[in-house]
This record gives sequence, C-alpha cells and structure tokens, in this order.
Amino acid sequence: MSKNVDKLWGGRFRETTHKLMEEFSESVSYDSALYEQDIRGSMAHARMLAARGVIPQEDAEAICTGLEQVKREIETGELVWKTELEDVHMNIESRLTEIIGEAGKRLHTGRSRNDQVALDFRLYVADRLEGWKKGIAALVSVLVTQAEAHQETILPGCTHYQPAQPVALAHHLLAYATMLMRDEERITDCLKRVRVSPLGAAALAGTTYPIDPERSASELGLPETFANSMDAVSDRDFAVEAVFCASLTMAHLSRMAEEIIIWANPNFGFVKLPDAFSTGSSIMPQKKNPDSAELVRGKTGRVYGSLMTLLTVVKGLPMTYNRDLQEDKEPFFDADRTVVGALGIMAGLVSELTFQAEAMTRALDKGFVNATELADYLVTKGVPFREAHHASGRAVALAESKGCGLEGLSLEELKAIAPELEQDVYDVLDYANCVARRKAPGGTGPESVARQLEAVHGWLKERV
Amino acid sequence: MSKNVDKLWGGRFRETTHKLMEEFSESVSYDSALYEQDIRGSMAHARMLAARGVIPQEDAEAICTGLEQVKREIETGELVWKTELEDVHMNIESRLTEIIGEAGKRLHTGRSRNDQVALDFRLYVADRLEGWKKGIAALVSVLVTQAEAHQETILPGCTHYQPAQPVALAHHLLAYATMLMRDEERITDCLKRVRVSPLGAAALAGTTYPIDPERSASELGLPETFANSMDAVSDRDFAVEAVFCASLTMAHLSRMAEEIIIWANPNFGFVKLPDAFSTGSSIMPQKKNPDSAELVRGKTGRVYGSLMTLLTVVKGLPMTYNRDLQEDKEPFFDADRTVVGALGIMAGLVSELTFQAEAMTRALDKGFVNATELADYLVTKGVPFREAHHASGRAVALAESKGCGLEGLSLEELKAIAPELEQDVYDVLDYANCVARRKAPGGTGPESVARQLEAVHGWLKERV
Amino acid sequence: MSKNVDKLWGGRFRETTHKLMEEFSESVSYDSALYEQDIRGSMAHARMLAARGVIPQEDAEAICTGLEQVKREIETGELVWKTELEDVHMNIESRLTEIIGEAGKRLHTGRSRNDQVALDFRLYVADRLEGWKKGIAALVSVLVTQAEAHQETILPGCTHYQPAQPVALAHHLLAYATMLMRDEERITDCLKRVRVSPLGAAALAGTTYPIDPERSASELGLPETFANSMDAVSDRDFAVEAVFCASLTMAHLSRMAEEIIIWANPNFGFVKLPDAFSTGSSIMPQKKNPDSAELVRGKTGRVYGSLMTLLTVVKGLPMTYNRDLQEDKEPFFDADRTVVGALGIMAGLVSELTFQAEAMTRALDKGFVNATELADYLVTKGVPFREAHHASGRAVALAESKGCGLEGLSLEELKAIAPELEQDVYDVLDYANCVARRKAPGGTGPESVARQLEAVHGWLKERV
Amino acid sequence: MSKNVDKLWGGRFRETTHKLMEEFSESVSYDSALYEQDIRGSMAHARMLAARGVIPQEDAEAICTGLEQVKREIETGELVWKTELEDVHMNIESRLTEIIGEAGKRLHTGRSRNDQVALDFRLYVADRLEGWKKGIAALVSVLVTQAEAHQETILPGCTHYQPAQPVALAHHLLAYATMLMRDEERITDCLKRVRVSPLGAAALAGTTYPIDPERSASELGLPETFANSMDAVSDRDFAVEAVFCASLTMAHLSRMAEEIIIWANPNFGFVKLPDAFSTGSSIMPQKKNPDSAELVRGKTGRVYGSLMTLLTVVKGLPMTYNRDLQEDKEPFFDADRTVVGALGIMAGLVSELTFQAEAMTRALDKGFVNATELADYLVTKGVPFREAHHASGRAVALAESKGCGLEGLSLEELKAIAPELEQDVYDVLDYANCVARRKAPGGTGPESVARQLEAVHGWLKERV
Repeated sequence: MSKNVDKLWGGRFRETTHKLMEEFSESVSYDSALYEQDIRGSMAHARMLAARGVIPQEDAEAICTGLEQVKREIETGELVWKTELEDVHMNIESRLTEIIGEAGKRLHTGRSRNDQVALDFRLYVADRLEGWKKGIAALVSVLVTQAEAHQETILPGCTHYQPAQPVALAHHLLAYATMLMRDEERITDCLKRVRVSPLGAAALAGTTYPIDPERSASELGLPETFANSMDAVSDRDFAVEAVFCASLTMAHLSRMAEEIIIWANPNFGFVKLPDAFSTGSSIMPQKKNPDSAELVRGKTGRVYGSLMTLLTVVKGLPMTYNRDLQEDKEPFFDADRTVVGALGIMAGLVSELTFQAEAMTRALDKGFVNATELADYLVTKGVPFREAHHASGRAVALAESKGCGLEGLSLEELKAIAPELEQDVYDVLDYANCVARRKAPGGTGPESVARQLEAVHGWLKERV
Repeated sequence: MSKNVDKLWGGRFRETTHKLMEEFSESVSYDSALYEQDIRGSMAHARMLAARGVIPQEDAEAICTGLEQVKREIETGELVWKTELEDVHMNIESRLTEIIGEAGKRLHTGRSRNDQVALDFRLYVADRLEGWKKGIAALVSVLVTQAEAHQETILPGCTHYQPAQPVALAHHLLAYATMLMRDEERITDCLKRVRVSPLGAAALAGTTYPIDPERSASELGLPETFANSMDAVSDRDFAVEAVFCASLTMAHLSRMAEEIIIWANPNFGFVKLPDAFSTGSSIMPQKKNPDSAELVRGKTGRVYGSLMTLLTVVKGLPMTYNRDLQEDKEPFFDADRTVVGALGIMAGLVSELTFQAEAMTRALDKGFVNATELADYLVTKGVPFREAHHASGRAVALAESKGCGLEGLSLEELKAIAPELEQDVYDVLDYANCVARRKAPGGTGPESVARQLEAVHGWLKERV
Repeated sequence: MSKNVDKLWGGRFRETTHKLMEEFSESVSYDSALYEQDIRGSMAHARMLAARGVIPQEDAEAICTGLEQVKREIETGELVWKTELEDVHMNIESRLTEIIGEAGKRLHTGRSRNDQVALDFRLYVADRLEGWKKGIAALVSVLVTQAEAHQETILPGCTHYQPAQPVALAHHLLAYATMLMRDEERITDCLKRVRVSPLGAAALAGTTYPIDPERSASELGLPETFANSMDAVSDRDFAVEAVFCASLTMAHLSRMAEEIIIWANPNFGFVKLPDAFSTGSSIMPQKKNPDSAELVRGKTGRVYGSLMTLLTVVKGLPMTYNRDLQEDKEPFFDADRTVVGALGIMAGLVSELTFQAEAMTRALDKGFVNATELADYLVTKGVPFREAHHASGRAVALAESKGCGLEGLSLEELKAIAPELEQDVYDVLDYANCVARRKAPGGTGPESVARQLEAVHGWLKERV
Repeated sequence: MSKNVDKLWGGRFRETTHKLMEEFSESVSYDSALYEQDIRGSMAHARMLAARGVIPQEDAEAICTGLEQVKREIETGELVWKTELEDVHMNIESRLTEIIGEAGKRLHTGRSRNDQVALDFRLYVADRLEGWKKGIAALVSVLVTQAEAHQETILPGCTHYQPAQPVALAHHLLAYATMLMRDEERITDCLKRVRVSPLGAAALAGTTYPIDPERSASELGLPETFANSMDAVSDRDFAVEAVFCASLTMAHLSRMAEEIIIWANPNFGFVKLPDAFSTGSSIMPQKKNPDSAELVRGKTGRVYGSLMTLLTVVKGLPMTYNRDLQEDKEPFFDADRTVVGALGIMAGLVSELTFQAEAMTRALDKGFVNATELADYLVTKGVPFREAHHASGRAVALAESKGCGLEGLSLEELKAIAPELEQDVYDVLDYANCVARRKAPGGTGPESVARQLEAVHGWLKERV
C-alpha cells in the first residue's frame, strides 16, 4: 500500500490506499500511450500561460525544455512508469518537477487533470483517426488496382445470395471502395467534433486565471475551443463516435471477408488465396485456410463490443467528470488497433488474391443470370411481361435439366418454348453484352465502371 | 396459404407459400408508414421516365394522378392493406394498376423493388431526422429559458458526484444545451449520407434504360445520387448512423434525467416536480415520482438495443441485397419514436421544473465547495500550496464538526488554523464571488454565461 | 389531459397529467398481453387472503367470479382498454370493481402494483419459455427425421469453411440438434429463477398483513417464494436471462440459416429449397430465394438488441422499483415472438429441404477431403508423418491439375508420388470408408451416429 | 517473415507468411494464460492413449515428465514464448519435443488443435468460474456482517428514488446478498455446460483411433463428454454464457455502486467512505471521491461489451471451427479480470463503509415515509381509504411547510386534519414500529430479517 499522504491529494486522508484499489484504479499501464499528446498539450499550455503573463517566460521555457527531456527518456525507455503515480499525467509531471524543480509545479496553473486528460485523449484520437483515413485510402487503392485489372471479368451478381444478373468484377470491387470512401467521409465529419480543445475548463468550472484557450488550441492545431467547461470535462462523445465509425468500417470489411471466405471454398473457387495471408493444417494436407479474412470477420465483434462498452459507460452519468470515464480509453485503443490491423490485412490480402475468371464463368451458367434478358427480349417482341417471365422460367428449367446455360439451348429448343425467339437472342444472352447494356450512371456497364474508376482515382489523388 | 402463382414472382413456383412464412416475412404491418415516401418516389421516377422518353408523357401523368388517388385512399383509411401483397410497395402498385390499368405496370420500368425500397427508406429517414433536429431545438430553447432565469442561482458543481466548486445553475443547464447542439450537428452530417438517391440501381446491376438518376434525385430534393449500383441496393449505413445519432442523444437525455431524479429526492430537494409530468402512488400519499425522467433514462437502453440490432444485421452480409435487410426498419422506427418522445417529454418536464435555490445554497455549505478558494487565498499570502491545501482541509474538518459552512467559522477560528487568514477571506469564500471570478471563456462566471446565452440564441434564431 | 384527481394516486396533485406524458408512459397498449396471468395471480391472492382470514371468504369468491367475467369480456373483445388507466392491472381492477363493488377494492390488500406486476410478468415469461422448449423439441424432431434419412449421405465437413474431412450428413444435422438440446437445458435452468413468486413483497418493504406467500405461490405452480421484498420488486434478472437464452438459440439458428443460404447457391447446390419457404423475383425468372433463412439470420440481431436493451436498463439502478423497469416487457415480447417464429420457420424449412447427395459427392472430390487418409495410409506403411503429409499434398496438386479427386488418380500416378502406395489405397480413399473408420464416441461413423440418434429419440420421448 | 515451410502445416505452401498476418493472427501473447490447462489436458490425453494401447506406456510417461518440466520452465519464466509458433499449444508441444524427442510428437495422436483448444479453454473457464463463486461468497459475507450490525438502523426505502417506506438497513443490504446468491446459482448452472470434455472430437469428425473420451474427461474432473464432434469443436456457448453471468453480476454491483456514490454525497451523507477505497483531489481539499464505486459502475460497460463481442462473433458462423472463434478468449479474459476485481473491490469497500444512522433518520423525516401508516391508521378507524389517503396527504403538506416530520405535528394539528387521530398515532408513526409491523416472510421486519440472516449464514457455511 502506498501512503495517501504522499499522494498530491492526500492532505485530509489518514489511511493508505488499499493495494487492491491501487491496482483496480491505475491507468498508467495503458494511458502511457498518450505521453506524446500529454507533453505536446503541456507545452502549449505553458506557452499560453507565459504569453498571458500568468507565469514567467523563463518558467515556460524551463517547462518546455524539461518536457523535451522527459519525452526523450520515455522514448529511450529510461523513464520507469510508476503505478502509484496512477496515470501518465502524474508520471510526467512528477518527473518534470524532479528535473526542473519548482517551475514544474507552475505548469498546472489554470488547468486540472480533468481538462488535461480530455485534451490528451482528443489529440490522441485525432492522430489515430488520421491513421484510419490512411488505412482506408490504402485499401481503396488496392481495390482500384484489382478493379482495373478485372473490368472484363464477369461473375454472377447475387441478391439473396442467389445468382441474379451478371456484373463486372470491377463493379463488384468498386462497391466496396464506395463503402470505404463513405466511411472516410464519416471519419472526417467526426474529426470536427474531436478537434475541440477543452484546455481551460479546469476541474469543471473554468479558471480564475486570465487564460486564452484559443491560443493554446491553435498551437495544437485544434480549430475549436470548448463552449462550456462542465461539458468539456465530461464529454466523451468524440470517442464514442470514433468507435462507431470504426464499427461501420469493420462491418464493411466483414462483408468483404465473408465473400472471400466463400469464394475460396472450392465449390465457388472464385479466388486463389495468397500463401502469405493463409494458413494450412498440420493434419490435412489439402487445406489452405482464409484465416486472415476469418479474423477480420471475427474481430468485427470486438469493435461492436467496444462501442457498446462506451455507450453503457456514458449512460445516465450525472455532471460532470466521473471516474467511470476512465473506461473510455481501452475500448478506443482496442478498436483502433483492430480497425488499423484489419484494414492493413485486407489490403494485403486483396492485393494478392488471384481471381479465377473461369470459375466465375461456370457459375454464370449455373446461375442462369441471363434469364432476365431472355424475358426482356420477349417483351420487345411484344410478349406481355408476365408471359415472357414464365417462358423464361421454362427455358431455365429445360437448361437446368440438360446441365447447360440458357445459351447452351438450341434455337429449336428455344422456339419450342416461345416462337418469338430468333437467332439474335444469343447475342442478348451473351454475358458480356448483358453487362455492357447497363450503361446508365452507377451501373455495371464498362462506361459506368470507367467513370467510377476515374472518380476513385481523383479521390485518391487528393489523399496521397 | 396464398397461392404463389398469384404473386408477381410466382411463375416458376408450383407450391404455395406456407402460412407461417407469410406471417414471418410480411412487412406491410409496419412499412406502410412509408406510403408517402413511396408515392413521392414513384412520381419522380415516372416523370423522369417520361422526360427521357422511356414511357409516354400521358402514362406518367396517369401514374401521378393515380398515385394521388391512392394517397388519398390511404389517408382516409379507405385502402385495405393486404398481407399477401407483402409490403407497402406492392400494395400501392397493385392498387394503382387497379385504378389506371396497364400504364401502372410501366411505373416499374428501369427500377426494381431493391432500389425502390432503399429510396423510400432514405426519404423517410431524412424526414424523421429533420424532426429530431426540431425536437432538439425545442429542448435547447427550454434549457435557455431556464438558464436565463437562473444566472444567479448557484449550486454545487460536482465531480465524482461530490461537491467540487460552485457553479451557476445557468452554466449547468447550458452544458446540456451544448451537448444537444453537438447532437444536432452530428445529425446534420448524417443527413448528407441519408440524402443520396439509389433510384436507378435497379435490382443490383443498374438498368438498360436510358434513365437520368440526377433528375429524379433533384425532384426529390436529394443532392446526391448513388455511385455504384451494388452498393446502392445493399447500403443501410445511413440508418445505422441515424440510430447511432439517436443513441448519443438519448445518452445525453439519460444524464439529464438522472440528475433530475436525484435532485427530486428530498435529500437534495433541488427541484420541485411538475404535477403534469409526475405520478403519485395509490398507497403512499407523500409520493411524487419523476416517472417521466425515469422513462427517458430507461428508454435509452431501447435505442442502444436498436443500434446493436442494426450492426448485427449488416455484419458479414455478402453482396448485395439480402432479406436480412428487411430488419432495418423496425429498429429505426422504434428509435425514432423513442428519441422524439423523449425530447418532447424532457422539454415539457424541464420547462415546468421549479428549481429550489435555497436547497442549493444549503448544499453549498454542506459541500464546502469554497475550500479551493481558501487554499488559493493562502497561496496568494505566500503559503506554499501543499501547506495551504492542508490548512484548508483542516478548516473543512472544523466546519464539518460544527455543522456550518467555511464562511460560518469565526475569524478567530480561522486564524487558529492559518494566521495568514484575514477578514477579507469572507469575500473570497462568498459563493457568488467564487463564481464571478471564473470569467475566462467557457467558465461559469456571469460574463462567460452571458456569452454562451448569446451564442445559443444565435443558434436558435437560425433554426426557427 | 386526464385529471390526476381521477387517478388513484391523485390526492396530492392539483394539476393534470400532460397528454404527452400520458402517451409516453402508458403501457396498456402492450401489457394487456398479461391479462390472463394478472387474473390468475389475483385469484390466488384473493384465496390466500381469505384462507388467512384477512378478507371474508365471500369477498374472495366474489372477486374470483368477477375476475372470471372480466376474463371473458377480454377474450370476447367486450372490454375496452383505457389508456388513462395506464396499464393492464388498473384496467382489470377497475372493471372488477364496477362489476362486484366494494369487495373489488379489497383485492389489493397486502399487495401493491410493484409485486403484482412482477408476478404477472414472471408467470408470463414462464408460460412463454415452455413454448420455447416446445419449439426447440419440434425442430430437433425435424432434424432427427432428416438425419435418419441421411445416415449414408456424405458431404465435406469444413473447418475455416474449407473442405476438411468427409462427414455423414446425419452427423452434421445432429450437431445442430445437440446445440438445441443444450439450449433447452439452459432454458430449463432459467425457469428455476423465473418461477419465484414475489407476491407479498408489496410496494417494497413487505406487508403488515398476516399473508402466506407460499400458499399463493403453490396455487400458481411456483415452487419458490421471494427471499427479500426489496429485491423482489426490482429484480428483472429472470427476463434478462430469458432473452439471453433466446439470443443463443437465435445464434444457433443463424448458423443453420447461413449454411442453408450458401448450400442453396447453385455453386454448392447441396439443397433444393421448398417453394413454401422461398420467394421468387418479379424480374428474374430463374430466382428462388432462401428468404426464410435470411430472415432468421437477420432477426438474430433483433434478439441481441433486446438483450442489450435490458442490460442497459438495469445497469446502475438504485433500489428498488424504478419506472425504467417498465421497459422490461417489450424487449421480452419481441424476443419471444422472434424466437418462436424462427424456430417454427426453421422446422418448416428443414423438414421440406431436399438434400442433393450428388452435388455433395462432387464437392467431396473438389475438396480432396480424403487427403488426410492418404497421409495416414503412408504413415502405417512406415513413412514419417511429415513426409507423408508432403506426399499427400503433392497428390492433391496433381489431382487438382487433372480436375479429378484423389481416387481418380491411377495407381501408377500415385506410386510415382510415393512408392509405398498400393491398390488397397483406393479402399482407404473411399469416402464411405473414411466416415466409417471414425467410430469413436461422438464421431461421424455410423455406429456413433446411430448412438446419437438413439439418444435424441430418448430425449424427445421425454418431451412429447 | 517466418517461413511457412517451418510451420507444421507448411508442406503445400511456397511463400512465407506476411509479417502483418503473423502479428494479426498470433494468440500466444494472451493464450499463454492457458498453459496449466493445456499441460493438464495433454497429460490426461497421453495417459488415456497409453491405457487404450494407442501409444506405449513409456511414451506416456515421457510425455508427462516432459510436460512437468515445461510447466516448471513456464512458471520460472525460463521458457521464451515464440510468436512464430502462433499459440500456447504449439509453443508447449514444440518445447516438449525438444526435451523428449519423438515421443512428443505422439501426443497429438487422436486429437487435433481444434479439440485441444476447446478443452483448454473449457478447463480454464471452469477454474475461473470457481473463482467468481468465491468472490461472490466473500462479498455476501461482507454484506451479512454489515447487515448484522445494522438490524436496527432504519433508512427510507425508495421507489422511483423517492422515499416510500422505512426499511431496516440490514434488509436493504440483504437485498444485494439475495441478488448475488442468485448469480452464484446461475454460474453453477453454467458450469454444467462448461464442464464437458471435447477431447476426441479431433479436427471435426472424430478420430479413427480407439480412444476413450470418458476416461480422459474423468481424469480432468469433467463429468460429461461431447455428444457430437462437429458441435464439440465449434461450440463456444459456454464462454458466452459465462460472460453473460458476469454481465448480470456486474449489473448488480453497478446498482450497489450507484447507491454508494449517491449516499456519499453530503446531501445524503448516508455513508462515510473509507480512505483506503477513495481518492482525494489535488486541488480541492474538501474532496473525498468514491472512485472505487465509480470504477465498478463504469467497468460494467466493459463486460457488457465483451458479451456483445462474443454474440456477434458466433452469429451466422457455418460449421465447424472457424478462425473467428479465436476471438473467444480475450473478451472472456477481460470479463474475468473485471468481475473478479469488482467483487474484490466491493467487498473491501462495503466492509469499510461507515453507515451514518443519524443522516438516515433525518432523511426519514424529510421523506414522510410514515405517511402510508397514517392513512392505514385512519382506515382502521373507519375512514374510507381514499379519504384517509387525502388526509394523510394534507398532513404531509403541513409538516413540509413546518419543516418537520409527521410525528413532529402536534395532536391538535393532526386532529384538525382528521378528528379520528388520537395520541396512539405517534406509536404508529414511529419508524421502528413501522418496520416491526412488516413481519411477513421476506419483509423488512426484524423477524424476517433474522430469518434471512440465518439463511444466508447457512448458504455461506456450505461454501467455506
């Protein structure tokens, strides 16, 4: 047990903190990750205090020099984190004071741990979200590269996981790029609410010192400052929103992962998995497992769990800071690690996937994905839609029984089903033609796909 | 059992749909709520088709006139919804065709139920989110009114739910307004992603007709159109994000509710509950219960649950539309009802709360929330901070034992603790002075509060 | 607005309840589902009161007769539910008093709405859980019937969704039966905690009347009575636990649904979907969609959401009853409807699935699921395991390039890979033999499957 | 990058595993926690194999001796965990083979990593759940000790967090003991489903070796063995259920925490916090914060999050083992750490809480919790209930205006409200009498409390 009397707040306490309590409540084992943000925030605060005449200029300089040294000590592993100093903030401040003496204590003028911890966490989240955006751009770039190579590869587009209509593989891959670009936009919106400085809110009520919150915020690259001190010290919306953004991104990656897993099953055989992102079996020699995709799919649950954690933590909390809020960091850290890891893994995996065009073609036949075209053809020949739909259904049944695609039926066979069918129906049934006809904006036709590719390239160019 | 052969898609089916299946899969019992959006969307589609020459102008006119009639029949209760027609879209289309004949069938040219249902839902969500923004503005307005009336009412601001420093009640109330304005900004960002037209994505691959998606979108007031048809028919991110926005808003309301519930307990006695938003007990004559606040707090769980539902539904779904997505509507509907109800209830409740300034003053004394000021005073007199902190702690202990506040101690008593204390300390200890000294931006001081009030008024003005 | 003065608890209230509040807080629109339990509970209470001499015997009789009449009026639709009477309990009590006069008011002696509502809900949950157990037994029975018909049908068992080893379809189906029987056991355990009578806990503190809680409990078929009145009125664990049980059951059904969906895709073609549980497409004539399975998978999210709702509601609630707890019912009702519906749908769907043995056989070849056997064969011939594993891998590569299964390779080809391979290897490679060799308990061999079938039949016999 | 060819399963792989993939997919950094269970399981397996003649007796002995050594090396920190060996199982097996040579490889006969990992995790969960039960018993014991000391301490029992009726503090504390004993029962039920041996399920299909699953299970203290091998390797229900049990326990602790937090606020002042489980403020000398209780409340969200993670992971997973299931451990580990920590912290905190009887008495007056008794008194004097209720309400209003409790009103004042009131009403209003009158089973009266204490003591005796 460490003596409370040694703690900064120990004045009124006679007994010592229980060992169990010390372990249960410490945070330095994980919040030391915030050291860079803590030091950056403290420097900005010290300079602002000096600029406003609250502390002498030389104190501010001593503080900044001292903090530089602390940073070096942390980065070289020299500084030993102490659990009894509870968190990253106290560890750094305590070391600073050892180095520069009394001036170190003046750093805390006009702020408190409550606004300090909120600031550090905001700076950290902002940094990480920039990383997420980079991870997304990298994966989009990989998708685009594969899409470009597969503008003429055709596979069955599914609804209800039943073959529906033929689509270009490029179009299919660009659907994922579209989701990810939307995710990136959402993260950018979230950043507006992350990049708000709470510095100066102090414990909860603001400070009596003539501080200048805009100055320190601007030095930290934060475009906004807090509007209300009580909100500022108890607001963790930015972290919850960030983890929500991660949740939707993971949902999209889990969809991609699901498709890759099924496509890698030999009954589909749409992809050949790269050795570098697969594993084998110590027992079964024929196995190549899509572990990377499975892990991405599984880890989605983890980010959802973190979101639920954060929402539960903030529910029903009275004003202002409550210690419950210490539980804000680990869920974010875990979500961050997971989403960044998953984006990287998917980029690696997708870039090395070998798509199997022949297997896709076989699947087109099995799925009769040109049956709609047959019906439409009949409609253009004047057959009422419902009748055309039924005729096409009968053609499907016949081809199924013969084990071929619709285009495998002879003209004779087709005419027996609907006399309006002529030789040119084979052009209509051709999968490439089916795809080509869907040239309207956003469709799977080559022009539309080309426009999409161009747009994504433009998007990427702004980001590299 | 209804015969599949009567269903639009029944061609290839010989058996009938199982009764159980019909009940399990129908959606018209709840998606009829989308009728207005469905009709609006169909009209825009028909006019676009005519403008592009896909259908004759007179067909488009017949369709629009017919749909107007269907709308009237729905609003007067004339139209009988049929479960065997599955959903709102089929019910309306079927009635339209009864009214205008063959032309009605042409409405479905170049679209499918997949893009239609996505469009209707997007229009609906957009409409509701506008309602949420109005509900938030109304509650902010109530908070501002109460805040204006309580700029000089002082209560103990808490951290760790322990009295920390005195704050103006106005400041406390404005913290909630600040949260809500942030919620509104988040909803506005979300709306960008809601207001994207998927019309023209058709079943999944786009259409072969020369449609003009931008035209129909613009008629519907949607600034954007889909980029990729496969994404367009399977994207429900907009609904998940909307329910996330509702979740954070409910979290804020639950915090407010929690405080009101505790404040209404006679040990606090900070508020008198309005009869109109409370209930009593059939057994206990002394009871007045904060049911409205309790329900708001409880219903927060409900919105969280809806969010978890939606995230679970979309996880791991392969491309493109899957019937799982039918589960998108009820969670959104429930979240919508709940958040709109809760905003309204809180506006009513807060507007009729009577704050009890005297009880708050008594609590200031009990909480020794001016102890920090005493320590700061000693620091200005040259006492080292740690010593000053301890002296202040001793003064608290003495006052506690005498059952008074710090300002209830005589100068003699105070001097016995720290000889540096002089008569002017009573000014320092005065709660109003404590508050007034926190004049920095965002703090609880009167100038800061006045600036906040002005800012919120500006915000409200733009919204009414 | 209804006048509070008309409300039972209106004595001290001067103002009326706000219309908004009345709507927000009413529960009769959904808790009327509890009418039967409410009446049953009230009868047991009245009889106990009479037996203990608290009310005259003739009052108890009048109450019971009156309640019988109320029940009839509800079941014939005669009774009009009134929102201003808030909930099912007040509606019934009020009608009872209209019918039998003063004696009706004596029913409430020694109980309060708090223990009454807890009792009714417990009785309701207990009834529903019995229904879940029946639904599970029905689905297990369907699985067993299909398993019996498919003891010799062999398909590739997967790990990582890659073909691993051949398994009997019966074994695969019995895996699901095993999960469901475990679910049933969990529900039975849960029922112990549901079937506890809270009657007599009154508002929160117990009652001053000489009641006999065991007597009323036993009349209601509840083996236990509450231990502590404060816990009794605020405990909703039983409902949370029940919804958790539903969540795991849905998880299992979602796994089954996922497999059916993929198996119905023509690339697998392992099942033919029954028309009665599928839908088609109005546009695409070739489509038969596994909507029933998709809905089951999707609705899983809904039950998870209800669980999250309940857990959120009970978190951090101080003693004892809080109005938040009104939010207990709708999540349970929704989970109940969903799980019962899903069990029924899956029973219907599975019973009508046509398994396609030929497609499964083709998949065995494509998956090289006998590769392990080849390696094991070599080990028995003295080849070190690692070398045997590699040799088997080479055989897989060769067969893959030739488009056949391992057993399609000639002995010459095999010997070129490993000279130890002899003619008898074809017996080893035979899928049926592979399966047959796994005769250890719980394995896929015919004896093990027969034992499992016997065990499940025994289980079913106890339940019908 | 480590070469796949060095991996056990590397035979068919030419490329190396990507570094990113190695990091993303390793589990040894956390599953090394299972080393003791892994070794125990392997020993039981080896002995069973020898007993069945599958491996020589001396091999089994060498394996067991070797494993003992590995265990020592782990416990002394000698063994260096290697990430490239992926998980705890491969690390131990690899070290074993280094020590004892070829015999080490025979350990894997008739099992696979799939059943091994399931076994280890089940053993681990079973061990931890025993720890949870101990933690619960310890907290119940602390609650009972405090309850015994406070059988005559009376406080206002609340509904809707409004004072309702007086209750004994002992009764209030025993409500929490009751919840916890229910939790323990639920965990015991869960253990039935945890303690099932999957050993012998092998990869998924069972094994061809003549193993004896019951023998190894019984050596491991597991009363049941798996029924179906495919279920056995993919079942994680036991872990999900365990985390659900932890969630409800945390919910109960969060309720307790919430009350302690509010009770510690000086407006209540019902408890004095122990220094050992509180923290102070470096700025505010008067502060003593209930951090321990706040952390318990906050960490509840964490366990809920883990539950959501697990439910999401298992949703929709096809048969059998999928790598997603690797995500089973960390959520359980985190929930385990949290619930064990929280139980310990609450036991420490509650055992050192000082309850403030005087503050509770003052609150009784302020809450008019004897108002029901006043009404009941009038009823016994023949006043109709509704009139009595109103009279009591008027008495409350009068006492409120005079700033006293009901018993502070003079007989004259009381008679002016209702002439039926006589001197003996003061006995009726006496709080201790109010409590004493509730002598029915489960109520707050002293006899009932004594019976509860006796029952809890009996429960504890069976557990120590």
